[in-house]
Amino acid sequence: MKTDWGTALLAAMFIASGSVWAYDGPVEKKVFALPTYTTAAGKTIRNVRVGYETYGTLNAAGDNAIFIAHFFTGTSHAAGKYQAADAAPGYWDPIIGSGKPIDTDRYFVISADTLTNLNTKDPNVTTTGPASINPDTGKPYGMSFPVVALRDSVRVHKALVDSLGVKKLQAAAGASGGSIQAMEWAALYPGFVERVIHVIGPGFDIHPYIVELLDVWVTPIRIDPKWNGGDYYGRDEPVDGVANGLKIVTITTRHFGWAEKTFAYRWADAARNPADATGNLFAIEDTLAKAGVVRAKTTDANSMLYTAKANQLYRLTDDEVKAIKAKILFVPAQSDLIFPPELSQRAADRYRAQGGIAEVAVIDGDGGHLDGVLNVAKQGEAIRAFLAR
Amino acid sequence: MKTDWGTALLAAMFIASGSVWAYDGPVEKKVFALPTYTTAAGKTIRNVRVGYETYGTLNAAGDNAIFIAHFFTGTSHAAGKYQAADAAPGYWDPIIGSGKPIDTDRYFVISADTLTNLNTKDPNVTTTGPASINPDTGKPYGMSFPVVALRDSVRVHKALVDSLGVKKLQAAAGASGGSIQAMEWAALYPGFVERVIHVIGPGFDIHPYIVELLDVWVTPIRIDPKWNGGDYYGRDEPVDGVANGLKIVTITTRHFGWAEKTFAYRWADAARNPADATGNLFAIEDTLAKAGVVRAKTTDANSMLYTAKANQLYRLTDDEVKAIKAKILFVPAQSDLIFPPELSQRAADRYRAQGGIAEVAVIDGDGGHLDGVLNVAKQGEAIRAFLAR
Repeated sequence: MKTDWGTALLAAMFIASGSVWAYDGPVEKKVFALPTYTTAAGKTIRNVRVGYETYGTLNAAGDNAIFIAHFFTGTSHAAGKYQAADAAPGYWDPIIGSGKPIDTDRYFVISADTLTNLNTKDPNVTTTGPASINPDTGKPYGMSFPVVALRDSVRVHKALVDSLGVKKLQAAAGASGGSIQAMEWAALYPGFVERVIHVIGPGFDIHPYIVELLDVWVTPIRIDPKWNGGDYYGRDEPVDGVANGLKIVTITTRHFGWAEKTFAYRWADAARNPADATGNLFAIEDTLAKAGVVRAKTTDANSMLYTAKANQLYRLTDDEVKAIKAKILFVPAQSDLIFPPELSQRAADRYRAQGGIAEVAVIDGDGGHLDGVLNVAKQGEAIRAFLAR
Repeated sequence: MKTDWGTALLAAMFIASGSVWAYDGPVEKKVFALPTYTTAAGKTIRNVRVGYETYGTLNAAGDNAIFIAHFFTGTSHAAGKYQAADAAPGYWDPIIGSGKPIDTDRYFVISADTLTNLNTKDPNVTTTGPASINPDTGKPYGMSFPVVALRDSVRVHKALVDSLGVKKLQAAAGASGGSIQAMEWAALYPGFVERVIHVIGPGFDIHPYIVELLDVWVTPIRIDPKWNGGDYYGRDEPVDGVANGLKIVTITTRHFGWAEKTFAYRWADAARNPADATGNLFAIEDTLAKAGVVRAKTTDANSMLYTAKANQLYRLTDDEVKAIKAKILFVPAQSDLIFPPELSQRAADRYRAQGGIAEVAVIDGDGGHLDGVLNVAKQGEAIRAFLAR
């Protein structure tokens, strides 16, 4: 019974809700390649490849596209299923599809894997990062891979979007780290992006509190001796560090209410009282630890370190904010402990003060930050209406 | 300049504010010993010793005592200085002393080290825990030490208080883990405890969200290979795990506002842009990491694991809550992300519903959970008035 409950819970936690819906077109993973890419900080990377998916059809004018950027642990699988037998559709499927708020009957939707995507061992992910082969050495880069910002993923994705014949984005959208990329789109390409849908985002810069929390997320990796300064490819990998880091990601992106409803004060095993032995755990400890182990199987440690850094580097200059022309919809989650709604409100006020158009639509609930991934459909109609303005 | 700034900041972060004040009586560390103690879970420990301090004088009736219980990383050094040259007085000195809210002209104040206190290498701390010598083997217990709850520290402290001739506590008080012990005093000894001053506390039970966060605090220790299942005494100790655990304690017991005011988006070194290399850090990362290393010097890894467990085990039964007779003052901190004010409000409502007397006085500010340690004086007059009721 314990195992069944744990398995069911894992499914409930990490698979997008609303799996009765699914974008009904064929979903196919494709790969975009650039012979070279030079980062915003001036480092050149050869053989850059990122995976991407599209839903819907680009119109003749090339101006009905929407780009969906993914969050920290996410991938380009935003909607639909690859095969009918898939356990779940992409994470934002409840709002992407025929007749849904991001309506694939009207829009051509594109989503792509970031550089340094965490999920290097997921066969549906293609990324370029520390686990990629350095063409100069024939070996994985490891920590010799250049530092990239989320802005760099956006610049690669702009080349992808151009290659598809897109002339204008009706919106750049994303949750969390994806919301950062969406805002970068608007800052880097002001004439190209009509709207930003900034879901559970920080606004125009990362907060110093979260700079540190990102460091905490990857702290277990650095301590794991198998990490070995990032040199572990082809050996025993720092799975323990990754699993524990992902465990910390989970609890910090949730909220008190979620923990209370999901776990209460239950023990992991009714026959093993935590008061009796140090190894006797509470249900929340046991389940989050096991979930971390499962998720670690597809995650690369160095890529998690690089992605933490990429998020820490998000900070638009005053001039960059002033250059943004897009209408912005901020969609914070009420119980978000990572990017609380006040950050969205602050950014909306700042944007209005410079004459921009900003709206704020709050996702209610007590699921924490992850409500922007799992319960985004609560503001689905706000998103639909925003796209029509 | 960088080093000076870091040192100054460490002082500002970890030394109680208000150091111009100091309890002006002599502060002397004493030790209380019990030949044996049997835990609430039924395990017997021999040669139990805990350090304690007292401020003020017990009256003839033995009924003017106040017990101060300490927080997770704290010690019995609640007020005053051992020597004039001490860098700072005890952590709650702003509210304990002659003429202060906990007035040592009127009250006899006692504070004692918990069992499994973290600071085993602080010469002013005496505790019994996994770093203590097991009289059966002549070697440190390590992970063979029995699990203890905070309730067990309270039961040992009751024996201490009895040994001093105390007949009644005017109050049991404490911040965070200390607030838990204060409530345990009232639950275990309802006729003995007149009042509870529950500062930045969880109410009558630990929240499942914090059960997991306590696990996160000690996660780096478990991953550090030098921890070695708790068997490291006399060898190279898991200092890295402890330092990183304490770093996580610091950020999670703070708040966005504190991070913004203290660090903003500054780099650790103005000449080393974090965008240029993975090892180039932000100021908040660098300072918290260094502070963790400093604090790790006096901290025992296993004791941190045991104290996390002791906190996880706090949960009064309905009958225990109903048995409490004390008046309770809840003093949450407005920006607390560990035990948010709602938890105090919920507990106060519950206590009033059973006919108890409960008050709530909120510490304003954006310092997070630690406001209950560093800025408790903001509600000093509420504490003074509560003691007079």
